[in-house]
Amino acid sequence: MTAGEGSPASDAELVELLRQNGIVLELDDLEALLDGVLAAPEGEDSLAWTALVSENPSPELVRVFQDLKARRRSAGSKKRPPIAERLAGVRAAMAERELDGFFVPRADEHQGEYVPKRADRLAWLTGFTGSAGIALVLEEAAAIFSDGRYTLQLEQQVDGAHFERLHVTEQPPAEWLLEKLPNGGRVGYDTMLHTPTQVEALIQALAPGGIELVPLDDNLVDHAWSAQPPAPLSPAIPHPLEFAGRSSEDKRAALADDLAKRGAEAAVLTLPDSIAWLLNLRGADVPRTPFCLSFAVLHADGALDWFVDKRKVTPALARTLGNSVRLQDPDALGAALDGLGARGAKVLADPGSAGIWFFRRLAAAGAKLLYAPDPCQLAKACKNPVEVAGTKRTHERDAVPLIRFLAWLDREACARADSGNPITEMEAADKLHGLRRETGKLRDLSFDTISSVGPNGALNHYRVTEETNRPLTRGEFYLVDSGGQYSDGTTDVTRTLPIGEVSVEMAERYTLVLKGHLALGRQRFPKGTTGSQIDALARQYLWQAGLDFDHGTGHGVGSFLSVHEGPQRISKVPNSIALQPGMIVSNEPGYYKPGAYGIRIENLEVVEEIDLPGRERPLLGFHTLTLAPYDRRVIRLDLLTGEEQAQIDAYHARVFATVGQHLDEADRTWLAAATQPLA
Amino acid sequence: MTAGEGSPASDAELVELLRQNGIVLELDDLEALLDGVLAAPEGEDSLAWTALVSENPSPELVRVFQDLKARRRSAGSKKRPPIAERLAGVRAAMAERELDGFFVPRADEHQGEYVPKRADRLAWLTGFTGSAGIALVLEEAAAIFSDGRYTLQLEQQVDGAHFERLHVTEQPPAEWLLEKLPNGGRVGYDTMLHTPTQVEALIQALAPGGIELVPLDDNLVDHAWSAQPPAPLSPAIPHPLEFAGRSSEDKRAALADDLAKRGAEAAVLTLPDSIAWLLNLRGADVPRTPFCLSFAVLHADGALDWFVDKRKVTPALARTLGNSVRLQDPDALGAALDGLGARGAKVLADPGSAGIWFFRRLAAAGAKLLYAPDPCQLAKACKNPVEVAGTKRTHERDAVPLIRFLAWLDREACARADSGNPITEMEAADKLHGLRRETGKLRDLSFDTISSVGPNGALNHYRVTEETNRPLTRGEFYLVDSGGQYSDGTTDVTRTLPIGEVSVEMAERYTLVLKGHLALGRQRFPKGTTGSQIDALARQYLWQAGLDFDHGTGHGVGSFLSVHEGPQRISKVPNSIALQPGMIVSNEPGYYKPGAYGIRIENLEVVEEIDLPGRERPLLGFHTLTLAPYDRRVIRLDLLTGEEQAQIDAYHARVFATVGQHLDEADRTWLAAATQPLA
Repeated sequence: MTAGEGSPASDAELVELLRQNGIVLELDDLEALLDGVLAAPEGEDSLAWTALVSENPSPELVRVFQDLKARRRSAGSKKRPPIAERLAGVRAAMAERELDGFFVPRADEHQGEYVPKRADRLAWLTGFTGSAGIALVLEEAAAIFSDGRYTLQLEQQVDGAHFERLHVTEQPPAEWLLEKLPNGGRVGYDTMLHTPTQVEALIQALAPGGIELVPLDDNLVDHAWSAQPPAPLSPAIPHPLEFAGRSSEDKRAALADDLAKRGAEAAVLTLPDSIAWLLNLRGADVPRTPFCLSFAVLHADGALDWFVDKRKVTPALARTLGNSVRLQDPDALGAALDGLGARGAKVLADPGSAGIWFFRRLAAAGAKLLYAPDPCQLAKACKNPVEVAGTKRTHERDAVPLIRFLAWLDREACARADSGNPITEMEAADKLHGLRRETGKLRDLSFDTISSVGPNGALNHYRVTEETNRPLTRGEFYLVDSGGQYSDGTTDVTRTLPIGEVSVEMAERYTLVLKGHLALGRQRFPKGTTGSQIDALARQYLWQAGLDFDHGTGHGVGSFLSVHEGPQRISKVPNSIALQPGMIVSNEPGYYKPGAYGIRIENLEVVEEIDLPGRERPLLGFHTLTLAPYDRRVIRLDLLTGEEQAQIDAYHARVFATVGQHLDEADRTWLAAATQPLA
Repeated sequence: MTAGEGSPASDAELVELLRQNGIVLELDDLEALLDGVLAAPEGEDSLAWTALVSENPSPELVRVFQDLKARRRSAGSKKRPPIAERLAGVRAAMAERELDGFFVPRADEHQGEYVPKRADRLAWLTGFTGSAGIALVLEEAAAIFSDGRYTLQLEQQVDGAHFERLHVTEQPPAEWLLEKLPNGGRVGYDTMLHTPTQVEALIQALAPGGIELVPLDDNLVDHAWSAQPPAPLSPAIPHPLEFAGRSSEDKRAALADDLAKRGAEAAVLTLPDSIAWLLNLRGADVPRTPFCLSFAVLHADGALDWFVDKRKVTPALARTLGNSVRLQDPDALGAALDGLGARGAKVLADPGSAGIWFFRRLAAAGAKLLYAPDPCQLAKACKNPVEVAGTKRTHERDAVPLIRFLAWLDREACARADSGNPITEMEAADKLHGLRRETGKLRDLSFDTISSVGPNGALNHYRVTEETNRPLTRGEFYLVDSGGQYSDGTTDVTRTLPIGEVSVEMAERYTLVLKGHLALGRQRFPKGTTGSQIDALARQYLWQAGLDFDHGTGHGVGSFLSVHEGPQRISKVPNSIALQPGMIVSNEPGYYKPGAYGIRIENLEVVEEIDLPGRERPLLGFHTLTLAPYDRRVIRLDLLTGEEQAQIDAYHARVFATVGQHLDEADRTWLAAATQPLA
């Protein structure tokens, strides 16, 4: 909207307009709602939020809404106080509670990878915006801990005068505390943000030093953070059966049956993807993942109490939920747990993902606790046939922008580099995003695109910024790890490609990574096999050369949900969850040469039953979802076996046969060449 | 000795003869000692036991000893009462304690794979002689549980009228108990024979049914077993530094240091191989493993209390032990633990291997328990350079009888089969044993030879008996898994070979097993890698064909100690112990077609550091210890990659170069042909 289109509506005019449209909402409520909207991410559809006010707003109403939102944004944007002041505020709250320290983790109360603005206390307090970290505030000292991915970012974003910037495994918070508080002390933590598993480990580590962990049912940062945003508000909408494949009633009945069998009356659900899956709903409270932040209690009769801000629940969703899903005020959660406790109910809660607040509250009220994994997670991981069909469709659709992007790069990158107007990492990421948008189906990216060239590719979780934005340069590898959220699925794909000629070593190591990726992808395995059992298949050729990579080989992927989900995982870390039909996992070995280049090749695979003649065991294997060519320019044929060549050729043929028809002629010609048999 | 050589000495003559030889021993003591000797296995050297009486007995004295032993054996051999009577005895003891049931596990108080005759309560009570099982005796019912290996043996050895014969995982003891005691009850167990880990699992499983586990500090079977043998007596002798490579003082000092660092004053040692390793001693109390059964308490100052029957401690050993190893009466063990408790000491004990008796006694006395793995196990697993050199020597020596055996089979098996006088499994096992004896260095077999042909090969832990003894028949696979104990090491090797022509399928599956064995054997891996991470490398080709095998791929192997040792393991089961230089592991994938044939190929490998140019990680790999050809007649060349062919050829060349020179001409010619390059 441009400034000339009309002057802002007055308050009176606005209320009148709302009334004309059948919306009974006080101005205060509308403003509070807009603050919530502003605390949620914008997303691909900048008007989606208007569903919170009206199911079918008139264009005029939409214009007014947008205008109001813009005004509210300006009104709300306050300069943050300096770090010293923020720290002083937290320290004042500590003093009031007679605490010597306080933990400020990155996590929110859902232990999410993405947290809403309101919960990003770590960023507010320290300036650090990385996705993993924890700060510790003491009276005279403070420190922030993150991992190797973020060493540089910590240095750039966090003021060393206020915070020691430390590596979380080299100098863990507990060790630092023991050193700083040699005579013991009382250190507080917010019980909503720390799980029993985490607290248990801290208690064990701190006990020898006489340091007492003090559970707090509020957060000291919140007291100091005057302009803390409200909880995010985004429309919670139905995830229709054509995508979900199974009704919420059916899912709840199955889980309830299992609860009953285990003698439990109820299960506490704190993971937003569990609730989204169980209720067949999607939201937009955090970026990149279509969550609706809320809590729930599932009962052994299949009924569910959903503790959610009712403003988020769109009429369309409300119509699908049915009577046995009871909308409850978020503030009623504690009392509901007390009620379970009062009748001595046995309640399941997940010590690995739920805040210890739940366990303390339930135990205090008299409930019997059943410590067990969130029961939705495994059920959700095993996609039903409708979801599998959806994700196959999604991947065919998402292959088009990716292949168009690869063709564009091949045509442009060297020429642009030579002309002195190189493509940059940022431009490339934007280009790919735009091409995905052109599908007309993109709901969001599934994560911030990793678009990296040269040494930036060796930084495992690199995200390009204005400061680091590097031109695509001849002789370097360009690595792009990206994905989209679509109603029928979630994609995640990595390709690495040479800009012009690269070194012999680079091609050799590309081929070693590829050989591992192929070995894992073609492996069949008996039912019962876990991801940790097959992880080494992807590393064997790198290991043979004395090389390795320091991340997992594969993570679970949701169905229009989180791009990282459990409980399965292909990794060195032991994992007891067997791979099961319908599970989607990534297959993404890599190799990273610090300061030089990074290689990663990633497909998503869905686990399928294999009906092989002569098999003696129930057999599983992978069907590759991702459709995009490997880069033949850096495949060293002399390092491949005949089996590997045939595997690449068959895959490439499939890519062309499936995607070629959806491309224009130029791109189709490019793809035909890129997918020609190797020999 | 033949009957005519002399009449048995009278008691008076005997005492006189002993006195003449400077041995002051009452007749009663001598008889008790002989009973102990008879309760130990005989071993390769049937006179070794005489070291218990005299360091250098005269030939005459030896003759008398042997005579006495024979007399004592006849006197001691009583017919066992019928099963019903044995069961009645146990039930009477149960009634006295007001128990509804009693557990009779196979385990002894050292959780050993081999148990002494005295501790083989399960065999006495039920007749079952397998190496894994547990019985449960109730007032009106009884059951025995074992695993799939022993289904047939259970049926053959155990009377179904007295015992239900059950599969331990299909119908676990706890489930059976819950079913038989629907109203709850009291079930006793011997605290020496069950570890805290085992008891904890049972308590958890039984609690819902109101079944109480009652700890007993004695064993009800012992009350019923009137002719129970005494504890075994065999000479405990030094394991000299030339084989051990490291002094006991040094080992104890290192472990003591570690104990002190963990704030512990002492560690309880219950595993006989731990004590053998730590004190550099060997014994012969059980078959196949040169153990001396005893307990020990290691103190944080490096001193050790050794609770052992002093009659076992030979003067030669006593001279090596030094002052800080204090010989204690076995009966003094409880009081020693009480002493630790009385001063509130922190004591390490291994809940996975020590009887719960230790934990209960220590806790009752006031000790603080440190639950941790037996500290000797990991240290022992990492062989020092002297031990590694020893095991290499052992394997070169042991290769000679094995290759002579393979050559003999190749020359004889078909001819004998055709002549109607086939070689049998038993004859083959005896032949191999005899050839090993001819090395002049064999101390014992390292386990009972698995010599199996045709369908018997498909039985994983088959041991030939008179009843099952099968002739080596054309068209079948012969599988031989065997090993020897030598002063400088322990061997364990499996080869599978065709008798005449075998089917295409058999050769194909032999080749799949071999490919997995080769893949594992040649794999390099970064420091920190565990055996469970690389297990799938040995299975990948079988899996690809829908096949698998139901045992671990590799176990640790001792240095003139147990042929199965931990803590490392190559297996599907997650194991957190990284493979480390000096560890010896078996590499033994297999394939078993029930009712038809079995294939297993096993080498021992020692983990070594690999100094590969360009490596970016500390790198480890395997050096193959075992030296014996694979069977080229059943290797399907068309299924091998060039890398695999080269690997086999290089190994075969090494086998010939190393062992050929120690063979006579006929066998050398045979080996030359068997180790020719494949192509």
